[in-house]
Amino acid sequence: MATQDANTGGEMGVVIVSNRGPVTFSRNELGEREHSRGAGGLVTALSAVSRRGNDTVWIASAQSEEDERVAKESLDEPYEVEGLKIVLVEHDGEAYDLMYNRLANPLLWFVQHGLYDLPYTPELGDDTKRAWEEGYVPVNENFAEAVARTLQAQEGVEGEPVILVHDYQLYMAPLALRKRLGDGAFISLFVHIPWPEPEGWRVLPSYVREGVLKSLLEADVVAFHTEGYARNFVRTACEVLGVEADEEEGMVRSEEGREVWVRAYPISIDPGEFEELARSDEVLQEEETIQSLPGKLLLRVDRMDLSKNTIRGFHAYERMLERYPETREQVTFLARLQPSRGDIPEYAKYAEAIQKAVEEVNEKHSTDSWQPIVLSMEDNFPLSVAAYKNYDVLLVNAVRDGMNLIAKEAVVANEKNGVLILSENAGAHEELGEHALTINPFDIDEQAEALHKALNMPDEERARRAEALQETIRANTIEEWAEAQLEDIAAYRERRD
Amino acid sequence: MATQDANTGGEMGVVIVSNRGPVTFSRNELGEREHSRGAGGLVTALSAVSRRGNDTVWIASAQSEEDERVAKESLDEPYEVEGLKIVLVEHDGEAYDLMYNRLANPLLWFVQHGLYDLPYTPELGDDTKRAWEEGYVPVNENFAEAVARTLQAQEGVEGEPVILVHDYQLYMAPLALRKRLGDGAFISLFVHIPWPEPEGWRVLPSYVREGVLKSLLEADVVAFHTEGYARNFVRTACEVLGVEADEEEGMVRSEEGREVWVRAYPISIDPGEFEELARSDEVLQEEETIQSLPGKLLLRVDRMDLSKNTIRGFHAYERMLERYPETREQVTFLARLQPSRGDIPEYAKYAEAIQKAVEEVNEKHSTDSWQPIVLSMEDNFPLSVAAYKNYDVLLVNAVRDGMNLIAKEAVVANEKNGVLILSENAGAHEELGEHALTINPFDIDEQAEALHKALNMPDEERARRAEALQETIRANTIEEWAEAQLEDIAAYRERRD
Repeated sequence: MATQDANTGGEMGVVIVSNRGPVTFSRNELGEREHSRGAGGLVTALSAVSRRGNDTVWIASAQSEEDERVAKESLDEPYEVEGLKIVLVEHDGEAYDLMYNRLANPLLWFVQHGLYDLPYTPELGDDTKRAWEEGYVPVNENFAEAVARTLQAQEGVEGEPVILVHDYQLYMAPLALRKRLGDGAFISLFVHIPWPEPEGWRVLPSYVREGVLKSLLEADVVAFHTEGYARNFVRTACEVLGVEADEEEGMVRSEEGREVWVRAYPISIDPGEFEELARSDEVLQEEETIQSLPGKLLLRVDRMDLSKNTIRGFHAYERMLERYPETREQVTFLARLQPSRGDIPEYAKYAEAIQKAVEEVNEKHSTDSWQPIVLSMEDNFPLSVAAYKNYDVLLVNAVRDGMNLIAKEAVVANEKNGVLILSENAGAHEELGEHALTINPFDIDEQAEALHKALNMPDEERARRAEALQETIRANTIEEWAEAQLEDIAAYRERRD
Repeated sequence: MATQDANTGGEMGVVIVSNRGPVTFSRNELGEREHSRGAGGLVTALSAVSRRGNDTVWIASAQSEEDERVAKESLDEPYEVEGLKIVLVEHDGEAYDLMYNRLANPLLWFVQHGLYDLPYTPELGDDTKRAWEEGYVPVNENFAEAVARTLQAQEGVEGEPVILVHDYQLYMAPLALRKRLGDGAFISLFVHIPWPEPEGWRVLPSYVREGVLKSLLEADVVAFHTEGYARNFVRTACEVLGVEADEEEGMVRSEEGREVWVRAYPISIDPGEFEELARSDEVLQEEETIQSLPGKLLLRVDRMDLSKNTIRGFHAYERMLERYPETREQVTFLARLQPSRGDIPEYAKYAEAIQKAVEEVNEKHSTDSWQPIVLSMEDNFPLSVAAYKNYDVLLVNAVRDGMNLIAKEAVVANEKNGVLILSENAGAHEELGEHALTINPFDIDEQAEALHKALNMPDEERARRAEALQETIRANTIEEWAEAQLEDIAAYRERRD
């Protein structure tokens, strides 16, 4: 059964499950169906997996009205678009809202990034329980049901299916899938955000902390972007559930005695995509704007998320300007910040604090010909790529970050031997830290010094570091990321049979 | 050398080092020297150690003007008071302020209890570095100098000395002591607050995070209140310094190859002290006040510290009143809160938030004959002991707490088979959790349910739990705590020789 697919899983009957799908459908003015490609690194990454097998089906939540029509059409058979076979899942609207806006995004995101102000927040209670019982769990069950239905409809695919579940919206899917598909199905769950240490995880109410772990131990593989998160997960499972594990081997034994492998596969990008983008007319046009900024270009590109550490970045920059007055007018800090989750109060407050920090620095230090910080919140990806190409220094100082693909995208697109300043708490640090300037995200003065050092680094050192960063990223592209997982899965299945 | 002191260390030449000493000196109106005993569990605990050997000297910081006179007098020879030999150390005022008010209490306390709002605080910088270099390190050196001087002056004590260093103000003492005393000295450092997980520790700037760990690995034993903190410490040392360790055995190998033992000795109390207090006139008098409160008595006793979780306690109580209206007028929540560190802005803000929470609950739920929460901030230990004797339910819901000795004191003094509600994040939970009602400190509804359950628990179950709590505490008193450490030290020394 397993031998025929021991290479890359080409014939394995692979199902990808993620909350967001690769495309969103809408209707144009003529009433015709149109689709737009989802943005973001995960879509690129999973598309790379999807392209590897003819039988790969991608199952995701319906997000728009037209998506819901496609969902109904894909009940019996996947819908084909852009060479992908997709199945969209309709959820009950309230359940989806509870899952997404009450459980996954505030609670799990905050716990896994360590963003709570613990003396005051969270105040967990019955609304959390309701979001769990009436939102998160049923939406996950609904996904599992769609997977089972899709597999039943797929005739002619031999062997047991491989289900690749993605991210923190779907932690309960492995349990729901195992119930429906039995022991033969191969289930992996990939967590794309940090996994916290056991005490961090214990902030969650007991039914979530134990429920999620028990479900994840119904998977065959639980995967992360870094060795650190994988180790944290093993420890969390041991300490919260009292199960046994081999930390060195990356193996946890579930309460029923199953071996669950815990692995790190650092996600990456498609360098070709960025090379092509970099040459596109849209980007070339935006470069004029970028090149009109005075002085060297210090860049950050982030969603406005509490995990990204935007405010300390501005404070560190200000400290550098104060400590090294000769740097004034010699550098512009372009902050490309994408508004995000504005309906969550913590995010609204954070966005305000960011704008206030920018205003304070600009008010204090601007001159007639120079504005120290340029805040750009326009939704304009070509502008970001134009900035990638031209930065002298890129600041990635996240409080905590699953990977931070911007560090990889920007390095690949950059044409200035730009220096990367990288938080030791970004997942990318395990791969790129050696060639970046490492900073502690909580230490303003260290960041100020790193900024100064980066802006004044000799050309030779800039070139050496930039080249090493490029090489590191190109040695592990999104293709290798997909390949490594599928190879491991084939090996695990062989071992298991 | 070691055999003669293999029993309890009676002749070992023991030096205790702690920031606060057992007594503070002052002058009365007649110009005569007086002294008052320090409050708090640590003084009781270390006094128990001190009483075990004739040669034990206790070295602490001078806190008052009169202390400074005693410091000068104790330069050559320890000062004897209340059967203790003490040496007081004078510090430079500014260095002490930097150590205490800039480094130890905000930074280390916050990091080790996980109290920062990480998207915003701390903003570490040069002031942190200055507090470290010009405050924390020199004060620690000053302590080590005093230890060396004291040992030199102690004639007739055979063998190598044993130095017992205490708590988070003195992390750099082991390194400073080892430099002065060489390999033969036996150095232990006891950490009385939680030790965080490695990523929690990494919030600190690199010179603190590495500096402290390197110093602690110059000790022979590093001790904590719980197995959990000991394990966190081993992991932190491995991950931050890259040293080797045996987590199971509780051994870390320092960069120089020394074996450092990492141990848990849960601190306790002197039950006799509380029995005696409970019978005292002052307490009997205060009991009248306590017994005049209407309904059952729900009690909490805490410093007003961000780690104690006071506000969620009030919110949980309110939720219980709302969910079980029949409990109204049937219970009074007495909150004995001791103002603390009011000059640190975070503490001032927290104290305000506490008072606001109390006002809100009382405004909404009070009746003509009943006030739901009675907030008592008077400095009156007899009143606390009177409350210990009479509570029906004791709430200890700390966000994180090294041990929480109040749980032990109150249980020993209680005469009502009172129920203990205990945070799983209090150190005391490792010993007492089995017989308490365990709560997640972040979950308001769970706490509301626990309060309701505790207030309505059948007498038989109350008695059974109370008895088990008493037995557990009396089986590990402060005498056993001191004994266990000194026995282990004797064994380690023998093994080493």
